[in-house]
Amino acid sequence: MYHQQAYALGSNRSCIRELFEYGRIRAKEVGPENVFDFSIGNPSIPAPPQVDETIRQLLTDTDSLSLHGYTPAVGDDATRQAIAQSLHDRYGVDVTADELFIGSGAAPELCAVFKALTFPGAKILALAPYFPEYKPFVEAAGAIFEAVPPDIPGFQIPLQALEQRLTENTAAVIVNSPNNPSGAVYTRQALQQLAQLLQRKQKQFGHPIYIVSDEPYRELVYDGVSVPFIPTIYTNTVVCYSFSKSLSLPGERIGYIYVPRQATDGQALYLAVAGAARSLGHVCAPSLWQKVIARCCHLQPDLLAYDKNRRTLYEGLLQAGYEIAPPDGAFYLFVKAPGGDAQAFSEFAKTMDILLVPGDGFGCPGWFRLCYCVSYDKIVRSLPVFARLLEKWNEK
Amino acid sequence: MYHQQAYALGSNRSCIRELFEYGRIRAKEVGPENVFDFSIGNPSIPAPPQVDETIRQLLTDTDSLSLHGYTPAVGDDATRQAIAQSLHDRYGVDVTADELFIGSGAAPELCAVFKALTFPGAKILALAPYFPEYKPFVEAAGAIFEAVPPDIPGFQIPLQALEQRLTENTAAVIVNSPNNPSGAVYTRQALQQLAQLLQRKQKQFGHPIYIVSDEPYRELVYDGVSVPFIPTIYTNTVVCYSFSKSLSLPGERIGYIYVPRQATDGQALYLAVAGAARSLGHVCAPSLWQKVIARCCHLQPDLLAYDKNRRTLYEGLLQAGYEIAPPDGAFYLFVKAPGGDAQAFSEFAKTMDILLVPGDGFGCPGWFRLCYCVSYDKIVRSLPVFARLLEKWNEK
Repeated sequence: MYHQQAYALGSNRSCIRELFEYGRIRAKEVGPENVFDFSIGNPSIPAPPQVDETIRQLLTDTDSLSLHGYTPAVGDDATRQAIAQSLHDRYGVDVTADELFIGSGAAPELCAVFKALTFPGAKILALAPYFPEYKPFVEAAGAIFEAVPPDIPGFQIPLQALEQRLTENTAAVIVNSPNNPSGAVYTRQALQQLAQLLQRKQKQFGHPIYIVSDEPYRELVYDGVSVPFIPTIYTNTVVCYSFSKSLSLPGERIGYIYVPRQATDGQALYLAVAGAARSLGHVCAPSLWQKVIARCCHLQPDLLAYDKNRRTLYEGLLQAGYEIAPPDGAFYLFVKAPGGDAQAFSEFAKTMDILLVPGDGFGCPGWFRLCYCVSYDKIVRSLPVFARLLEKWNEK
Repeated sequence: MYHQQAYALGSNRSCIRELFEYGRIRAKEVGPENVFDFSIGNPSIPAPPQVDETIRQLLTDTDSLSLHGYTPAVGDDATRQAIAQSLHDRYGVDVTADELFIGSGAAPELCAVFKALTFPGAKILALAPYFPEYKPFVEAAGAIFEAVPPDIPGFQIPLQALEQRLTENTAAVIVNSPNNPSGAVYTRQALQQLAQLLQRKQKQFGHPIYIVSDEPYRELVYDGVSVPFIPTIYTNTVVCYSFSKSLSLPGERIGYIYVPRQATDGQALYLAVAGAARSLGHVCAPSLWQKVIARCCHLQPDLLAYDKNRRTLYEGLLQAGYEIAPPDGAFYLFVKAPGGDAQAFSEFAKTMDILLVPGDGFGCPGWFRLCYCVSYDKIVRSLPVFARLLEKWNEK
């Protein structure tokens, strides 16, 4: 007499969690320094010092009732205005506070947006490789989830495969760039082509097709690659942002939804997002964190450590003979599984205490994900092990 | 092409919000000291000083990655152990950490529990008067919401009316004591009778009927009244707790769910709750706040200010001729609307700048709610206005 699907979700641990737990057990057996755990995308650089400093200031200059009290459900005015200003400074866009909804991180934001976009029979598409939680989120919203096969080996937008799957029932396409797990960043040109395709299909079907842009990695890019701000390319874009990665605050649950007023039904959609969030139990995003963000949302992450890890791991693996997706953003390398069976390769790697996540769960079998948000020392020490792993695998 | 029900929820402001906004506008017109706004249940006593002190300590003694990083979805071990200990100290119950799930306040906790308890055709009952958000939460979970008419004027459990509504499809009964809006506290005897009724009906229908106990006001009681811990009276009880009121942290979104292992299907239900939360976008409760709670969950609120307000308002209104429900807990007085039409009375009160919430939205027409979490000075100055209000109303 309980919800069977919820039970399944609660009892089936994700493959990533399984690996992570295995890594913890192995660390106890052989010492943490001997386990090369690349399984979990947990930021490894601390929050900028201004964040903790701002908390100390708030404890001094803001009275307790206001600091810890309810905010409006859509978020504090000051927070929304600061974010609007920061978006203007970064992208030259005119965003107003009442197009912004402060949420508790990308996950509940996506859930609210998916629900708001769902009509009877609605389908929401994700471009593989994709973050696995999209599927339960879309299904909980009452829509049908469908994956679009990946564009290999460039990991750009699989336009042709997408076009084949756009139907009358398509409510939205989820875009995640910089991408988890591939690390690829969609180019402006690819996004423009996507916009053209969707505009054409909107006309054909006579209703909007939204892009839901999941942007927790927006600021995590390297080598001067730029991440276009999608609402400037395609109007019907709803942005779900999180400060989890840019400010290294993944546990604190703070971000925002941007519903452009100029999007089709923009104002109504904003209210539907607010209503959907309410029906999911959203009261307000954590108040203290809203006030921190009001003062800190302009900060940029210090990417030097990630970049150093990225270059070292990328170049080392290339040299060892691995094939890797363009490593432009986020903190992931996506690597082709030698032989083509990523699950078998992941199992084999475990015997050498290397933990890597097969791409199957991301809708991209035959590839595996490495999170390089670990210590530099571990990256360096892992390289000869990766080389030996490939040799041994090829000898099998 | 968006979710119509979500839009309705997002665009229909609650009556409470309407009144609150009206009060803000009036405050600008006539001065805040002249508006007697009893509409919003926002704590008016600050968080205990130990809370802010603990944050300062955490910023010093905990490293940033651990302080702000992801915790397990079910919550930090230390937080769950501290809450288990605190429940043991308060109620002598043996609770283990793995029966506790750290949530982001009562609203999303209730949403997850309702979803976890929902089977095809399931009904979830609420005892009037009840918190209005139960209805959208239950409906979003896919269950049918049904209200049980109130027990007037005692505002105890309406046992007969409940019995008539218990059917094969009843999945759960929501209990909220101390009650919002009535301020009543269910007696041990009433809860024992409820337990007997449910046990009988469980046998009759051959499946569990759970109590979902919504307990944000558990520690807010006066005159030595005690709040029985319902799982000790009825095993099939799931507790949704929030620190919003007890520690005056309503904006920070932190609480817990207690799913007793000894409840029917207890372990499976715990996993279903975790899965339901996951499908609603729960990743973890705010990390910093989990760590604060680990050190502060044993604190008790300082109720002196609320109690002074309560006595003064209660006695003043009685003297003026109002009829009031037993004011044992929470920070609400529930008052009989003279003439029986609470909406008309509320409208009339607005002309004298008294803002009170009609009980209709709480499933209890003919009564109105006053939140006495306002300044003592305002309570005192409101008394002659309440007296004049009643006189004028009777002269109409």
